[in-house]
Amino acid sequence: RTVIVKLSSCFLQGILERLDAGEIVIGDGGFVFALEKRGYVKAGPWTPEATVEHPEAVRQLHREFIRAGSNVLQTFTFYASEDKLENRGNYVAEKISCQKVNEAACDIAREVANEGDALVAGGVSQTPSYLSCKDEAEVKAAFRKQLEVFMKKNVDFLIAEYFEHVEEAVWAVEVLKESGKPVAATMCIGPEGDMHGVPPGQCAVQLVKAGASIVGVNCHFDPDTSLETVKLMKEGLQAAKLKAHLMSQPLAFHTPDCGKQGFIDLPEFPFGLEPRIVTRWDIQKYARKAYDLGIRFIGGCCGFEPYHIRAIAEELAPERGFLPEASDKHGSWGDNLSMHTKPWVRARARKEYWENLKPASGRPYCPSMSKPDGWGVTKGARELMQQKEATTKQQLKELFQKQKF
Amino acid sequence: RTVIVKLSSCFLQGILERLDAGEIVIGDGGFVFALEKRGYVKAGPWTPEATVEHPEAVRQLHREFIRAGSNVLQTFTFYASEDKLENRGNYVAEKISCQKVNEAACDIAREVANEGDALVAGGVSQTPSYLSCKDEAEVKAAFRKQLEVFMKKNVDFLIAEYFEHVEEAVWAVEVLKESGKPVAATMCIGPEGDMHGVPPGQCAVQLVKAGASIVGVNCHFDPDTSLETVKLMKEGLQAAKLKAHLMSQPLAFHTPDCGKQGFIDLPEFPFGLEPRIVTRWDIQKYARKAYDLGIRFIGGCCGFEPYHIRAIAEELAPERGFLPEASDKHGSWGDNLSMHTKPWVRARARKEYWENLKPASGRPYCPSMSKPDGWGVTKGARELMQQKEATTKQQLKELFQKQKF
Amino acid sequence: RTVIVKLSSCFLQGILERLDAGEIVIGDGGFVFALEKRGYVKAGPWTPEATVEHPEAVRQLHREFIRAGSNVLQTFTFYASEDKLENRGNYVAEKISCQKVNEAACDIAREVANEGDALVAGGVSQTPSYLSCKDEAEVKAAFRKQLEVFMKKNVDFLIAEYFEHVEEAVWAVEVLKESGKPVAATMCIGPEGDMHGVPPGQCAVQLVKAGASIVGVNCHFDPDTSLETVKLMKEGLQAAKLKAHLMSQPLAFHTPDCGKQGFIDLPEFPFGLEPRIVTRWDIQKYARKAYDLGIRFIGGCCGFEPYHIRAIAEELAPERGFLPEASDKHGSWGDNLSMHTKPWVRARARKEYWENLKPASGRPYCPSMSKPDGWGVTKGARELMQQKEATTKQQLKELFQKQKF
Amino acid sequence: RTVIVKLSSCFLQGILERLDAGEIVIGDGGFVFALEKRGYVKAGPWTPEATVEHPEAVRQLHREFIRAGSNVLQTFTFYASEDKLENRGNYVAEKISCQKVNEAACDIAREVANEGDALVAGGVSQTPSYLSCKDEAEVKAAFRKQLEVFMKKNVDFLIAEYFEHVEEAVWAVEVLKESGKPVAATMCIGPEGDMHGVPPGQCAVQLVKAGASIVGVNCHFDPDTSLETVKLMKEGLQAAKLKAHLMSQPLAFHTPDCGKQGFIDLPEFPFGLEPRIVTRWDIQKYARKAYDLGIRFIGGCCGFEPYHIRAIAEELAPERGFLPEASDKHGSWGDNLSMHTKPWVRARARKEYWENLKPASGRPYCPSMSKPDGWGVTKGARELMQQKEATTKQQLKELFQKQKF
Repeated sequence: RTVIVKLSSCFLQGILERLDAGEIVIGDGGFVFALEKRGYVKAGPWTPEATVEHPEAVRQLHREFIRAGSNVLQTFTFYASEDKLENRGNYVAEKISCQKVNEAACDIAREVANEGDALVAGGVSQTPSYLSCKDEAEVKAAFRKQLEVFMKKNVDFLIAEYFEHVEEAVWAVEVLKESGKPVAATMCIGPEGDMHGVPPGQCAVQLVKAGASIVGVNCHFDPDTSLETVKLMKEGLQAAKLKAHLMSQPLAFHTPDCGKQGFIDLPEFPFGLEPRIVTRWDIQKYARKAYDLGIRFIGGCCGFEPYHIRAIAEELAPERGFLPEASDKHGSWGDNLSMHTKPWVRARARKEYWENLKPASGRPYCPSMSKPDGWGVTKGARELMQQKEATTKQQLKELFQKQKF
Repeated sequence: RTVIVKLSSCFLQGILERLDAGEIVIGDGGFVFALEKRGYVKAGPWTPEATVEHPEAVRQLHREFIRAGSNVLQTFTFYASEDKLENRGNYVAEKISCQKVNEAACDIAREVANEGDALVAGGVSQTPSYLSCKDEAEVKAAFRKQLEVFMKKNVDFLIAEYFEHVEEAVWAVEVLKESGKPVAATMCIGPEGDMHGVPPGQCAVQLVKAGASIVGVNCHFDPDTSLETVKLMKEGLQAAKLKAHLMSQPLAFHTPDCGKQGFIDLPEFPFGLEPRIVTRWDIQKYARKAYDLGIRFIGGCCGFEPYHIRAIAEELAPERGFLPEASDKHGSWGDNLSMHTKPWVRARARKEYWENLKPASGRPYCPSMSKPDGWGVTKGARELMQQKEATTKQQLKELFQKQKF
Repeated sequence: RTVIVKLSSCFLQGILERLDAGEIVIGDGGFVFALEKRGYVKAGPWTPEATVEHPEAVRQLHREFIRAGSNVLQTFTFYASEDKLENRGNYVAEKISCQKVNEAACDIAREVANEGDALVAGGVSQTPSYLSCKDEAEVKAAFRKQLEVFMKKNVDFLIAEYFEHVEEAVWAVEVLKESGKPVAATMCIGPEGDMHGVPPGQCAVQLVKAGASIVGVNCHFDPDTSLETVKLMKEGLQAAKLKAHLMSQPLAFHTPDCGKQGFIDLPEFPFGLEPRIVTRWDIQKYARKAYDLGIRFIGGCCGFEPYHIRAIAEELAPERGFLPEASDKHGSWGDNLSMHTKPWVRARARKEYWENLKPASGRPYCPSMSKPDGWGVTKGARELMQQKEATTKQQLKELFQKQKF
Repeated sequence: RTVIVKLSSCFLQGILERLDAGEIVIGDGGFVFALEKRGYVKAGPWTPEATVEHPEAVRQLHREFIRAGSNVLQTFTFYASEDKLENRGNYVAEKISCQKVNEAACDIAREVANEGDALVAGGVSQTPSYLSCKDEAEVKAAFRKQLEVFMKKNVDFLIAEYFEHVEEAVWAVEVLKESGKPVAATMCIGPEGDMHGVPPGQCAVQLVKAGASIVGVNCHFDPDTSLETVKLMKEGLQAAKLKAHLMSQPLAFHTPDCGKQGFIDLPEFPFGLEPRIVTRWDIQKYARKAYDLGIRFIGGCCGFEPYHIRAIAEELAPERGFLPEASDKHGSWGDNLSMHTKPWVRARARKEYWENLKPASGRPYCPSMSKPDGWGVTKGARELMQQKEATTKQQLKELFQKQKF
């Protein structure tokens, strides 16, 4: 492959200028999962107080993503709305204010973005307020509070991400649009649509009508399933004669056995997902497929480590004309194995080998698929459940509703 | 569980004082694999020039391990002998001297160790010189060169690790003993013994006789297989009436299908190992089993991320009396899931759940086991191969020997 | 369980009298697969010349099914149309006439049916004529030839089975209805419908309008998938306000990975299907699910051995009031293991054990799912294929059409 | 392949004449498992009263084996010793005498053997008497009772098979030798040896010294494991400078996860073994491997159906010079698929395809391996169990010993 490494100064332009010009924009990976493994985020609350407690760890992860090829650094403000952060009291000794967490996140992202000319995106995500009370004014107020920080810190654009209900996502877009900055919106849904049954195509239409310039999906499903969902969004927009850029930031876990609510309902979530982690070659296939589908903002979510992002950048290097910095430490398709002392390891230094490998799990006592718990079951199973286990499930459902989940 | 977090000042003592007193010493994890995924090490050469090129990335990883509970930080000097580093020319733009890499490694490790009172261990590993010429003087000279740096930088003790041949390991121990510092020695072998067929028990005896105070295994095999090997070492020492402390630093990959030469011969090495990654619960089982076997220096090698090291520290917290710092961000056995909004996710907040989970791979087109390539096949397969494929294999073997592998 | 064994004389009534009265009718299993393993049928042609060549083998299999609980013995006349039997020339030494094969099949079925008062059903299946020329008159003539034998031998009712195209199935029903005998019709289709894209519900409507009193599916898919298809047929009939009895005779192989054309396109067909064989407990679940869905003619197709049919009869014994003769040699849910000498084998003598067992394959190098060859791929894969591999597939398709497959 | 079908009259000679002349002798398959599925044998007791109750079913199975290539028909007298048959009282309505069962078995085997000139072998197997009291005289008396029938019916030779303890097997051989007829002896052991820890090599030596002319293994383990055991027997005989013919009749189930006591301790035994059933291609590999190892009496045990025996005969047809009768209905290596209408099915008509196929189970929720129950666990697991679960297992063991199992 003869692509030239030219670390470009082409990032001076905004997100829409780039996408409108047909450029490929590479997103970053998943912060909460990566930092959980590094010891800075607690699984369960998944809140980002690390921006204040351990800025060096957050900064390092941003840096790894930018080296890997990310053109966008999202502020580490996932679940950083005030209502969500209140839960943190249980385990964080000293009180850290919501504003402080959000500001620190912006400062760190900007510092690292400047090292490589990437864009900074301020992000908001779904709120406990919506799930518990559904009051539009209250929910919007929460988003506005975060937006104030993003405006003060002058992020480059905004992302409303990780929404299970299109209604709340629309509210978020409406608030973010007040800023005048470009807005992207991604939902954590699969091909079956949002939690109220709104299909992906219709979700996309509503988001664009609310003001989003970029729409797509993030989290909850594996690359293949996520691309299916984006495809339905694309078709919905075409049918409605609306135009928008497409975006995908899926999991880096194989989840063909997911139900409607995605990987959270899989029995392995969140502490037994290792055997599902995708390889760099899986990601190269994903990047190509996303590109072929017309998606131009291509990144990842939970499970995506820097080397997964690099795989996107390497796969699309022919189209983009350059490799990312971290490819200094990576041979394309394993070609760095060609110097190995053993002939059979050298034989692995080729694309066909890694493309066709069906990697073993080393776990002969484990199955290849799981049955999701709870409501995250497949459609067929849900129907059966409804017939056969009405009583038990009814009780569960009632319990469930009482908790305003 | 009610163990108290007391970040102890008990680390003032040296490695042998601690082990002699019956304390548990927790090692660190695998640098080359972790930093490869982060974009700072190249798979293939696996050399540590990152200590000079990107000290912040090496420092951060050390910091994560110390937060996770490591009592020993190994200098990132794997494959940092002069003969090995010469290969790096191909891909590192400016020339970096062997000495500079080793010195930077010592400085970074010491800086972070001081943040938490951990010990610093200088490490040497097998050399291309041994594999190609087997001249004792030349091989020892290479070790001595690294040792000079370790002495100048005054590391706390020394580790000779990742040796496939006990002969070379003995030479390394002999050189390191010249320093007067305590020496640990680990081999990357399985229960079948070293590459010349010396069984584990005998390897241990030779290493202790050469001066090692701590012996065991690292790398190449999964936790279960590695513990089997250490058990054989222990029995060998007992039979020879020798005393030494035991140590284990296995892979964080499931490799029940490995042959004699370990995971390198598995078809998934090194870019398709994801489905084999062990969970934190697998590591808790490993830590307990290692402890029950009498091993008191317990750590990891390739694949071990900070959260795996934390799992060792959490499993053995009752014996040690404290949890590591990073347990602030981790509930024991998933108990932080007890606040989840969904009842079926809350139901996962218990030890029995995670202990018994058989995690699915989400890969229904992949097998659970692989057949190793080359000479790394199982004993039965090797015999069959010898009968049936003599010609082909003979040719391979000759090719193999010509290369002085 | 205290159901009484009363080998009944209740079979004096015809098929419709029984079904109209709400009785459960148990079908038989798959002849071509069972007799292939016994050495009397050739895979590939799958023709039934064994009725003439080895009547004792055919008789014995009928006898085993009737002992297992079958209330219907189908004449072994699968693929016994004249056009199909002509192929047999290649491998059968002496010429055997189509009429002779069909007559012998009727005689053997009747002889065994009389031993246990079961009904005899004459069967026709899809013809090479339809696939090659589609001339209604010619195809109907082939069916009429077989029907003549069935009338001469006075079978109790008729089954048109194993049709991939509803058009041909309708022609078969129209011919069979000329006899005045009750007609059942089953198609070898899945939830995606027939090979021309007619959905299952519409297939059922057309068959009932053509005169079928019983409709459903046989062959090509596993029990679960087949029941999904019958459910769609049921819904189609309800929407059209038509009434008919429902019938299912699926494979005894697990085929969740099938595409539209069923198990023939799986790479394991027909000589590597062993790991997919269903257990007796899988069949008990199938029988219960079929019953709950309102199906009252419940049997099996390829892969169904006598013990699978017995499992249907045992599962539905409470509803039917009796066990089949062969249950003399079978304890319900493994209760015959309660006398075993080993305590852990005795512990298997209970329903919960077998119901929940996830049986291992003993094949760690094999996957759990396959990708179907050819056109039998899944819908998503087909779409992708159409985009990406148009050229290659186009060539294949053309080749395919030239052969008038 | 151009081997000629000559149904030979070469079987006029006795078993030893044939083996001494270097001929390959093909055994038959497993009666209790095959007839259980057909509805004539009860799992649990596994006794052969079908010889009296349903001679036509037993005759048909013999016939299928002889058609498939068997040169030896074993009388269906498994577990037909008087002490074992007494258990049958629970479920057989009318009392059938032990003598009647054994005589009928001989008559049926001879009748079918004459149809094809095969030899008849009378068989005895391990007794409850040995397990409960170990009195040599009493155990030998039981064998003598069966032998009287075999002498009266003039079988061609005798087999002592399915022994877990070499001591009892030796007693059986001693009794059978009183007849003057050739005696074969097979044990149902794996490479770990008999239940008292006698290794396979030593078992073979004792059996040959007691008078057996043919030794080997049957049942309990899969083909690969069984061949390993026979290899150890061969080496034992060579070391002791003894000569004997070798024999193997393994399971037709994949059982790599078996412990010392074989498949009985697998959780799937006996009603969930389906996914483990070997293919005809697995058997061709087994036949070749057995032949290469010097085994000349090659057959099967539980799970072996007629088509598995045919696979032995087809694999060794080049050496033997002829194909079995049932190969009329079977194309070598799937070549009968070359006429299929679909090009991708035709593509399966070749040896490489079936040889390399890794057949899927269609069971994504099932593992590939199981952990054996009870004492049948692997060596490593047993040791661990002994350390960790002493109390529980102790209780189990005591219970176990009280029952004199």
